[in-house]
Amino acid sequence: MNGRLETTIAAIATPIGEGAISVIRVSGPSALTAVAGRFHGKQNILNAKSHTAHYGRIVDGRNETVDEVVCTVFRAPHSFTGEDIVEISCHGGIHVTRRVLESILEAGVSPAGPGDFTQRAFLNGKIDLSQAEAIADLIQSQSDKARQTSLEQLEGALSKQIHLVRDQLVQSLGLLELELDFSEEGIALIDKKKVENLFNLGILEIDQLLNTYKYGKVWREGVRVVLVGVPNAGKSSLLNSLLKEDRAIVTNIPGTTRDFIEEKMTIEGVLFRMIDTAGLRETTDLIEKEGVNRTWKIIKGADIIVLVHDSTKTLTDDENIFLETIKNWDRQDFVIVNNKIDIRNDKTPQYHFPEKTRVVETSAMNHTGIENLKEVLLDKVLDKSEEDYKEAVIITNERHYTALSKAKQSLMSALKSLKSNESEEFIAVDLRSAIDSIGEIIGLVTTEDILNNIFSKFCIGK
Amino acid sequence: MNGRLETTIAAIATPIGEGAISVIRVSGPSALTAVAGRFHGKQNILNAKSHTAHYGRIVDGRNETVDEVVCTVFRAPHSFTGEDIVEISCHGGIHVTRRVLESILEAGVSPAGPGDFTQRAFLNGKIDLSQAEAIADLIQSQSDKARQTSLEQLEGALSKQIHLVRDQLVQSLGLLELELDFSEEGIALIDKKKVENLFNLGILEIDQLLNTYKYGKVWREGVRVVLVGVPNAGKSSLLNSLLKEDRAIVTNIPGTTRDFIEEKMTIEGVLFRMIDTAGLRETTDLIEKEGVNRTWKIIKGADIIVLVHDSTKTLTDDENIFLETIKNWDRQDFVIVNNKIDIRNDKTPQYHFPEKTRVVETSAMNHTGIENLKEVLLDKVLDKSEEDYKEAVIITNERHYTALSKAKQSLMSALKSLKSNESEEFIAVDLRSAIDSIGEIIGLVTTEDILNNIFSKFCIGK
Repeated sequence: MNGRLETTIAAIATPIGEGAISVIRVSGPSALTAVAGRFHGKQNILNAKSHTAHYGRIVDGRNETVDEVVCTVFRAPHSFTGEDIVEISCHGGIHVTRRVLESILEAGVSPAGPGDFTQRAFLNGKIDLSQAEAIADLIQSQSDKARQTSLEQLEGALSKQIHLVRDQLVQSLGLLELELDFSEEGIALIDKKKVENLFNLGILEIDQLLNTYKYGKVWREGVRVVLVGVPNAGKSSLLNSLLKEDRAIVTNIPGTTRDFIEEKMTIEGVLFRMIDTAGLRETTDLIEKEGVNRTWKIIKGADIIVLVHDSTKTLTDDENIFLETIKNWDRQDFVIVNNKIDIRNDKTPQYHFPEKTRVVETSAMNHTGIENLKEVLLDKVLDKSEEDYKEAVIITNERHYTALSKAKQSLMSALKSLKSNESEEFIAVDLRSAIDSIGEIIGLVTTEDILNNIFSKFCIGK
Repeated sequence: MNGRLETTIAAIATPIGEGAISVIRVSGPSALTAVAGRFHGKQNILNAKSHTAHYGRIVDGRNETVDEVVCTVFRAPHSFTGEDIVEISCHGGIHVTRRVLESILEAGVSPAGPGDFTQRAFLNGKIDLSQAEAIADLIQSQSDKARQTSLEQLEGALSKQIHLVRDQLVQSLGLLELELDFSEEGIALIDKKKVENLFNLGILEIDQLLNTYKYGKVWREGVRVVLVGVPNAGKSSLLNSLLKEDRAIVTNIPGTTRDFIEEKMTIEGVLFRMIDTAGLRETTDLIEKEGVNRTWKIIKGADIIVLVHDSTKTLTDDENIFLETIKNWDRQDFVIVNNKIDIRNDKTPQYHFPEKTRVVETSAMNHTGIENLKEVLLDKVLDKSEEDYKEAVIITNERHYTALSKAKQSLMSALKSLKSNESEEFIAVDLRSAIDSIGEIIGLVTTEDILNNIFSKFCIGK
């Protein structure tokens, strides 16, 4: 695995596009010599101190200027990767940036693949695996909650907790192994109750981490809210009214094509993905088609379902069918928005929503009740116990969740064996398995597969 | 104008998108204090030396960490703008980058508008106006030729030439004004022949610059090549075959919608915009419609017209009409590609292309003749005199072309007046006008309008 660290790699580290500046990152044992051969400046960067910036020109193989740049030197081990790094800040055009990179690659540097820089940081012991994953999450974060949890993970909050749990289990294993060593002499050294307590504590701590995942997933991926309603109930105006005040997310990144319009908004730092579906008529029609339709799948898979009703009209057949369906599902995450209250009057026909349903009255037109609706949406994802997680380490990553679940399984199996007086050897196998599962999270136990899977998800240049 | 330099400005300087890192640039008198208030690191950046990089955290107003960053300090006047600059390199996510910028703006910094940083560099005398324009051109360059010419302009090649011409004219003006001062005493101090020579030299030098514009425009904007042909002549395969070997431009930037497919390729550093039109039938039909159709407009406006013919077939009526039309236009930039030579045989019917027409035989399928076609395309834009321009300063900007044309007009008017013995005062008016026009190029003479027009074309952050 160390072989790959002997090469020097380079990539464009800034997003691709037109901007004022782009940065090309070069890392590895020959980063300084490679760049020095293509850099003309006042100072020879071979002699540059760490953390210093130098103005000059990058030239190509024929000694012709490619661009005016600023090179910043970070010397090993005081760099992101732990290796010598040169960051070349050039003019932010697509063509010129690529030419600068090409010139550096021609000087005997290899192009970096996705996540290569972060992988080097991991391999050189600058960060552990959960911290490496946090970097990708941080970059992809679209809300404050997502940013904060990944930042905490990057700063080692999760690693610390994982080490704590693992150390306790290693301590238990020590006790068990001591017993094994002396077992032939027939002396019962082990304090069974003590080991049992340690196991129970371990399971409790793992459980606490596992319980945070429902929040972690929401923080990281956002809350999927699906809007349904008959045509002209005011779904679009409601969505616009909701989005109006949200200035956190302005740019929509061009992504995969979607069958449904998805708009993003944040409420108190939590990302909500608002999915606007086709009209309700189409949707209820499709109930008969046994829910094979995508619209219906989206409704079923949503974290919150919002039915938008026109408060000036009675309930339509479509709405009644829909309400009946939802009632049968018994979903707690269902909200009715009673819209257009600004034009409701005495002549408005009577209608009744199902009991125990949360109803929010709004006028998308006058922007009335919108703040209330936001609070209701937030309430639906933050139950009262949320306060408990405010200071807690949050699990956001499915890989971590799976590893912790496996560790819990092994530990429960070990506990069971302990209680039924199985041999210490037998218990130790499960315990070692639990320790390994936990170690996978921070990369104490890794395989080439795990690493490839994690780092291939990164962007190039990171 | 100096008032605006008292504020401190900030913007995201890297392209918007997801990448490993983004850079936020802060410039102005309070750049250091503003960032220092939001930066927690080992070193207080208020005391940091110029051109040094510092690892730490950016915090928000509640002292909560926004991101881990590296701040690089450039102290006035040794920075791009000539002011104190801090460049904050943070994680390259859209949300996290925006949050870092927000934290800095909250600290009393103003958001920068398009071109604000470059405008400051100009106002602080770090670069002249033609150099400022070169930065925008460099970022937008899509070929080596475009990059090289804008880089030369940025490095002052044009400025130097403009100063040279202007200094000569100022010298002539000096002679004229000396004459004016002493004119009442009736002494003819002026060496008329010397002034005439200086005027002629000025016109010659301006002409040389003006002549480079046809190249400059092509270097900067690319050569528009339009492909026409009957259906199944192999236009698309030919285009694919041409594009196949061109690895210089891989990414297509999403741009404005176009009625025609335009693909970009470079041949020896020159950008070619290959425009694939609808079939020829449609095109020739439209000749009768008095050329109002867009296809026909594109053909007329192209730098090079390529007719793709299927060499296994005789000329169709449509092709004959097209050839006749082109013949009447007498265009030198017309090329016929005789395609599908791989399947041509004895049974192929006879046909004759118009005399003196450049014909290139190709097989798009076998990739035969493609290199030859590229050479022919390059020949069409680089006439023999191109060698003369290799070392010359190239005009690429329409504003510069217009200013030089105006200067030439004024100078010719001054020369005419001189020859017809008009009064020195009269001549001096034209001469001053020529000097002003030339001064506009490098920004010695500017108006708020000129500046706004130039810098509004920049991206934010530059």
